[in-house]
Amino acid sequence: MNVRRFDTAVYARRLAAAAAAAAASGLAGLVITPGYDLRYLIGSRAETFERLTALVLPASGEPTIVVPQLELASLQESAAALGLVVRDWVDGDDPYRLVSAALGGDSAATAVTDSMPALHLLPLAAALGVLPVLATDVLRELRMVKEEAEIEALRRAGAAIDRVHARVPEFLVPGRTEAEVAADIAEAILAEGHSEVAFVIVGSGPHGADPHHRFSDRTLQVGDIVVVDIGGTVEPGYHSDCTRTYSIGEPDSVVAQQYSILQRAQRMAVEAVRPGVTAAQVDAAAREVLAEAGLGEHFVHRTGHGIGLCVHEEPYIVAGNDLPLAAGMAFSVEPGIYFPGRWGARIEDIAVVTEDGAVSVNNRPHELAVVPAQ
Amino acid sequence: MNVRRFDTAVYARRLAAAAAAAAASGLAGLVITPGYDLRYLIGSRAETFERLTALVLPASGEPTIVVPQLELASLQESAAALGLVVRDWVDGDDPYRLVSAALGGDSAATAVTDSMPALHLLPLAAALGVLPVLATDVLRELRMVKEEAEIEALRRAGAAIDRVHARVPEFLVPGRTEAEVAADIAEAILAEGHSEVAFVIVGSGPHGADPHHRFSDRTLQVGDIVVVDIGGTVEPGYHSDCTRTYSIGEPDSVVAQQYSILQRAQRMAVEAVRPGVTAAQVDAAAREVLAEAGLGEHFVHRTGHGIGLCVHEEPYIVAGNDLPLAAGMAFSVEPGIYFPGRWGARIEDIAVVTEDGAVSVNNRPHELAVVPAQ
Repeated sequence: MNVRRFDTAVYARRLAAAAAAAAASGLAGLVITPGYDLRYLIGSRAETFERLTALVLPASGEPTIVVPQLELASLQESAAALGLVVRDWVDGDDPYRLVSAALGGDSAATAVTDSMPALHLLPLAAALGVLPVLATDVLRELRMVKEEAEIEALRRAGAAIDRVHARVPEFLVPGRTEAEVAADIAEAILAEGHSEVAFVIVGSGPHGADPHHRFSDRTLQVGDIVVVDIGGTVEPGYHSDCTRTYSIGEPDSVVAQQYSILQRAQRMAVEAVRPGVTAAQVDAAAREVLAEAGLGEHFVHRTGHGIGLCVHEEPYIVAGNDLPLAAGMAFSVEPGIYFPGRWGARIEDIAVVTEDGAVSVNNRPHELAVVPAQ
Repeated sequence: MNVRRFDTAVYARRLAAAAAAAAASGLAGLVITPGYDLRYLIGSRAETFERLTALVLPASGEPTIVVPQLELASLQESAAALGLVVRDWVDGDDPYRLVSAALGGDSAATAVTDSMPALHLLPLAAALGVLPVLATDVLRELRMVKEEAEIEALRRAGAAIDRVHARVPEFLVPGRTEAEVAADIAEAILAEGHSEVAFVIVGSGPHGADPHHRFSDRTLQVGDIVVVDIGGTVEPGYHSDCTRTYSIGEPDSVVAQQYSILQRAQRMAVEAVRPGVTAAQVDAAAREVLAEAGLGEHFVHRTGHGIGLCVHEEPYIVAGNDLPLAAGMAFSVEPGIYFPGRWGARIEDIAVVTEDGAVSVNNRPHELAVVPAQ
């Protein structure tokens, strides 16, 4: 399968920066199994199998790919372009010893990618003789602060999902099921320029009160408030994620009023974004508006999450996260209000931090979108 | 989304058996994050997020679900049906302490599911004060030996993928690309009774020599040997996986001869299957046929893998695996021969072990399937 990647120079720069960050943290190196970090570092979309594939990035020394011989073909091209040493192995070999050797026998701690499964992490810990730490700290800065090419990909993704939301009203016809609407949206996500559908949430009426509802066979009814939270992937792997809330027919006055408070909360959080402000302060900006209006207890989740190769990644916009924001960071700002058994609403844009504040990659109107009841 | 599950009694029985197995192994209990083991034990298809969801199954004590409050809705029904204690948490809480408490403070080792990501495993190890072990050993017996309902699901999956292979010749038209053929096959996988496509490999000509090739823009040519290795999922989550090799036009005599040796190797491995025989002996049965014909070095992978909720699971049919087979086990028997840069071939069926030997869930002819060149 052909996989679109950035230029080799992008990955070479990232590898060098990651090795330098590992050295600066006093680590022996990084061990990265397939997942978002591997995609970030070398552009590989290898998937995790029971056989170990790993990029070993020593703090000093040669970056090495440990790979089962029968998956060698899929990595050989990137390995050659990036000058990685290749250590292939066959069933019966011990790939964890190959990892240990590629780290150069340094006895300092090794950091592993967040997604490394226990299946590999526990035997690796045994081979190294010491429990690894999470590579998150080392890769956080690199992954959080997006390069221009990444921001451009997020902008393309944002524009594509905006085009999908522009079409959502035509799908929201009373009598149709959430699942039927979700199928139309999935098609539109691909038609409007994504290469993959990441997720589709259509939460109508009481289902809108469950932030992690996906979709069901519930039939849309006049008077429903409908949360539509959707996303896809654009090449080389960056995500869109945007929520708008729709009303089938005119909403009643209480809904309209509470929604307008939510809209203000979302705007205040976006306006709070600028370099040096902490993630927690952005969360608080949304939360305070809702709390002052007596809606605090109905906002049951954090305000946002970073986005890039992963739909959810750092920085998390949540109470207690004292991370200062920096230009180039990209994250969702998505407060919601939820009334169990009745209805819910959420407004979500992806914001990119610039020196002058937040720039949103999503630009559909924020108002409760009223869809004709017939 | 509606998810079909087995009867509650099936999951209740599995939970009790898993807890008993943990106790028999001297473990404090099991901690199972979303993945195949969780699907096996409670029928949940929750996906792993950065927020911890875990089934905690103490060797003695109450099974508990630790779950972020905003994902509670998706698990509440199964939790109620199975009588699980629910411990929900919100951003800011420490879910790893909830896991530790649910284990009852037992200082014995805890076992974790294979797929638990480092992101959760490392903080869990810190909260427990001791490095967990893999739950594989505890769950292996349970997961490897399939119940009748599981075997029935594997049979449905096998019949469905056989119907797809019956249609493959019509897709293999010279001038079409592997990707076009793969798209037709993916559609047929769904049309013939699967709920999801698991994977599609179309390896034509030299691409057939790479066992893990998927598909590409290569155009099919007269004279190509084409490896088609495909699978999907049938409810509630069991997999098909079947390979047949096709020849576009009549193969030359060397290919025909080498293929016939491969066919004998595959048959000998299937015939070696019976309770008490080891996995390694089945692998050896295929390997010996190829080695005697001078083709040993062209068979570069193990003979097979278990299958069920996971496409690849235990038992692995590989040299060195002295596990004795038992009635109810299900695995692939899939020797292949690979000639880099030229061609490859593989034959794969899923075999279920019975007291009388192997019964295959796949029943398409094993011969090299000659597709008309025009």
